[in-house]
This record gives sequence, structure tokens and C-alpha cells, in this order.
Amino acid sequence: MTRVGIIGYGNLGRGVEASIANSDDMELVAVFTRRSTDSISVQTKDVNVYHYNDILNHVEEIDVMILCGGSATDLPEMTPEIVKAFNVVDSFDTHTNIPIHFEKVDAVAKQSGKTALISAGWDPGMFSLSRLYANAILNKGKDYTFWGRGVSQGHSDACRRVEGVEDARQYTIPVEEALMKVRVGENPELTTREKHTRLVYIVAKEGADQEKIAKEIIEMPNYFADYDTTVEFITREEMKQNHSGLPHGGSVIRTGVTGFQDEHKHVIEYNLQLDSNPEFTGAVLVAYARAIHRLNNENVVGCKTVFDIAPAYLINMSDEDMRAHLL
Amino acid sequence: MTRVGIIGYGNLGRGVEASIANSDDMELVAVFTRRSTDSISVQTKDVNVYHYNDILNHVEEIDVMILCGGSATDLPEMTPEIVKAFNVVDSFDTHTNIPIHFEKVDAVAKQSGKTALISAGWDPGMFSLSRLYANAILNKGKDYTFWGRGVSQGHSDACRRVEGVEDARQYTIPVEEALMKVRVGENPELTTREKHTRLVYIVAKEGADQEKIAKEIIEMPNYFADYDTTVEFITREEMKQNHSGLPHGGSVIRTGVTGFQDEHKHVIEYNLQLDSNPEFTGAVLVAYARAIHRLNNENVVGCKTVFDIAPAYLINMSDEDMRAHLL
Repeated sequence: MTRVGIIGYGNLGRGVEASIANSDDMELVAVFTRRSTDSISVQTKDVNVYHYNDILNHVEEIDVMILCGGSATDLPEMTPEIVKAFNVVDSFDTHTNIPIHFEKVDAVAKQSGKTALISAGWDPGMFSLSRLYANAILNKGKDYTFWGRGVSQGHSDACRRVEGVEDARQYTIPVEEALMKVRVGENPELTTREKHTRLVYIVAKEGADQEKIAKEIIEMPNYFADYDTTVEFITREEMKQNHSGLPHGGSVIRTGVTGFQDEHKHVIEYNLQLDSNPEFTGAVLVAYARAIHRLNNENVVGCKTVFDIAPAYLINMSDEDMRAHLL
Repeated sequence: MTRVGIIGYGNLGRGVEASIANSDDMELVAVFTRRSTDSISVQTKDVNVYHYNDILNHVEEIDVMILCGGSATDLPEMTPEIVKAFNVVDSFDTHTNIPIHFEKVDAVAKQSGKTALISAGWDPGMFSLSRLYANAILNKGKDYTFWGRGVSQGHSDACRRVEGVEDARQYTIPVEEALMKVRVGENPELTTREKHTRLVYIVAKEGADQEKIAKEIIEMPNYFADYDTTVEFITREEMKQNHSGLPHGGSVIRTGVTGFQDEHKHVIEYNLQLDSNPEFTGAVLVAYARAIHRLNNENVVGCKTVFDIAPAYLINMSDEDMRAHLL
């Protein structure tokens, strides 16, 4: 049994909770929050909610702490702090800052004798694994990643900050024609604009200037300027009825060649269609929490990534059953 | 540098050779054969061909031996024998006999202090990995494997044994409608017949009874009786021109649910399109040879499968580069 604590009870925290409830060998012990503990009502029976500041009183009860904070400000501080006392799993997803986050967490974990897994989820996470396996096999080739169709929470938040916007939902949509060119092995060079389009649903505040809102979104640097973006205005009711889910997904494709004259082409594709981004991400974090608990029991300490974990550690199944039924 | 020996120089042996030639950190040292050494002309410069019986004279020159024999009779004897003196990688693919093959190889490897990896390739191999990862994340779900469109060498051989057949090529073809039902998450129960069809091209001997050949193939137990099979007769020239390649591939799909009420569906798909089955399989074996060499250097001995190998061991890239560029 792996006894788990969750830090942060937003969408991801609830996704982790649901995955633990579906896993026979995992037990949710406690949820920690920096908000008022009264404001949180946990779905699992007999699970206590504690304030984040009380965390060190629960060292003995918890095998792995799953950190469900954000990558912008929470995790860069929190993961190195928590790994002083706990094994940890996080979903740090700011790709460019992964090396520095790794170094910080690794240094503390090696001192404390704990085991950490950073950047789990689907990208980074399962998509990263697909890239690595595909590159190891087809060392001559080209990588493509397409995201969507799915809701980008970062882009939705950016739209919500535009004046006159009451609510917003942004869908990232891969360009079907580009995907097809990649799948048939054409190895196209694709610009940002050629790979994805963006579709934004906006509930405008009463009296807001819709044309001005649309222009501001479409021209927003970093978020939208490099894409073909469509902005549609809908009612509060339509938003609630049609856009309350958090679906996502995407495809990692590597095309490559083998042979003495590079004469044979191959296409490797890994593809996800997710009804609930936070629940799927939560399920990945829970599988890696299982692995990290096992590794710490084997005295393997320090910071790890998905690249460092043998697949067998992730599943609640004996080696014999794996070989008989999954190999 | 990993110094490799190849045992057996058929399609797979040549695929391994090509992959080594494309890998900066791998070197082909020798090819071993049970045929006459004069009958074999190796493509790589300065590589010697030795008789299988001389293998023990080359223990010091070779870090990993890649076994390219067949699973029916070669590998069950060969892998346990060779691992007495060498680290080994094989592609043993008789799924039901994997547990017994594992036990035999493991017992010898633990005695000899060598490291073995059995059942590498794409199925078993990459498909098995996809099944394991998907099962670890979506523990409530259903697995599907589709093969093709591709050439099955076993089925082609079976057709060649039919009286009156000069040459034969068998394509396994997934049923598009079944694949689509799985991809949209319908979780269909599919019979063998509903998942794949078989298409056979035959060059008949002069004067042979084509109707009799077709009937015998279509009704052949185990190989064809459970499938809808089409037999087409073509000329020797057509066979050479249109069917000399060995393409293959397929899809591993897991559909599953998450949430407290199983309310969210997810689809994970891993998909391969291979122009050359033996060259792709060879590339997988070479990546695992790299891993096995590294593991043996770390004094990890015994028999392993793809489930036991952390992905980082497979690739010729530093941990820092992996985290910076693939995660």
C-alpha cells in the first residue's frame, strides 16, 4: 500500500484523488492546502484536510506527496521544500526551466534521502517518453508534436484578463492537413501557424465592445499573434452547457529512416484523446507515485524524471503476470 | 562504444547490421553463422564472419551478442546457451512461451554474471511497452491490438507449403470499421474475424489447380480458417515488382475511464507504420543492446524484458540533454 498526500486541491488535486480511489494499492491519507481548510470538502471518506503549514506533523503517515500546484510560482518553491521531508511527485511543465528545477530538487533529495519525480503528466510525461523511445529507435528522423483538440487553461486565462470579458474558453486545434502530411511521411517544415489554430469562446460583459475584445485577443503577443484565431461570442448558458469540460490530447509523431541507404521510412505515432485533462494527468502522477515509493524502498534517492523509471515500477502487477499478459 | 556480435544473418541480422551502421556509439565486430561462412557476404567493411561453433573464441571482443534466429527452434536453445558467455539480446516472439524462456535464460545469466534481454522488437517489444504504460495509467479499461497492413512471414511460409504453390505473400489487414469503433471509444467486443482480414498473393506452379490451392489456404486451420481470406493469383514478375518488401505495423489502443463515477473516457493509441519490419525490429534490438551493455557495466545481471529497462538506457544522449530536449 502506498499512502499518499495531496498538496493543492484544484482540478489536478481532484484528478489525483479520483485516480487513488480507483487504485487498490494506493490510499489517500490527507489533503494539504494554503487556503482555509474549512473551504475544502474532500470527496474521499475519512480524509483529513490540513493547512500547508502543518505538513511536517504528518511525515510518518505519508509515503509520497503529490504536488498539485502550478508551475509558474508554486512548484519552483514547493518541490525543493517538500522533498526535505517527503518523497514527492510533481507535474512541473515549464519546459525551458526543467533543467534548473531538476538540479534544485536533486540536490535537496540527495541530502534528505528522499526520492522525487518531476514533470510527470502527459506533456511533459507520456509525450516525452514517446519522443525518447522513438528517438532511441529511429536515430535518423524528425519529431512532431501536435496538441488538441483541447482546452488550454493558460490561453483561456489570458482571454479572461481582456477588458470586457466575463468568461472565456480557448480550444487548441491541430491543422488536419499538416497532421496528414506528417503521417504519410512527407517530413514537412511547419510554421507555428501551419500546425495549430485557436478557437476562443467568449462571454462578454454587458455593453462590452465585442470587436475590440476580438481584436485584442487575436493580436495578443505570445498567446495568439502567431496563430489563426477565431473568436466567437456566446451566452453564459451556452458556455456552461457546452464548454464546462477540460478535454485535451494530441499526437507525438516521429518519422525516420533505416537501411544502409536510408531507403526505408517509418512512422511512430503516440496519440491521446482525453475527456478530462486533469484526471488523466492525475492518473499519471499516481502511477509515478507508486514507482517513487518502490524506488525509495530500494534506497534509490535523488531527483528522477520519467526517463529514469523502468516501466514495471508503474503498475500494480507482479513481474510474472506482466510477462505472461502484457509482453 | 558497444561492441556487438550478430548471430544469424537473415533479414533480421541484416536489419541489425544496418542499425549499427547508423549508430555512432555501436560497432559491429563479427557475424556468426551455422551455415558455411563462405556463403555469407557482410555489408559492413572489415567485419569477420565466423562459424557458430567458434563463438567462444570471441568472448573478449564482444560486449553484447544480438541473436537473430527464429523463435520456433533457434532461440529456445540458443539464448540460454550463449548467455553463459555473453550479454545477449533476442527477439523471442512466441508469446505463450515467454515465461518459460525467461526462467531458463534468467537462471543461466544469474550464474554467469551476464545480462540478457528477451523478446525485444515491436510485438513483443514496443507494443508491450504501450500496453503496460496504458494499463498503469488507465487501470479501468480495455486493450486492443491491430496488426497491419503488413506482411506476415509465418503466414506466407504456410502458403508456400501448399501443393502447387511456387511463391506466396500474405498481408494482414486491420478492419477499418473495427479500428474506428475502438478509436471513438465504443469498446466493442470483436471476434478474430471482425478485427483482421487476410490477403494472399500466390504464384502458382505451371499446371497447378488454382481453385484447389485457394480452397486449401482459405480453410487452413489456425492460420486462415478464422479469417475472411482473399487469394489472388499473380505472375512471378508481379510478385517481384510489387511484393518484395516487408512492410508491417499496427496499433495498440487502450480505452479507459477515470473519475469517481467513471465519467470521463480516454483513448491512448500507439501506432507504427513500418516500411521494413526487419530493419525496424533490428533498430529496437540495437537500442536494447546499448541498454544491456550499460546495465551489465553497472553489475545488473540476469534476464530482463523491456518492462525492466528505464528508457534513458536506450539512447545515446546525456541525461542533461534528454531533460533539456526531449522532456
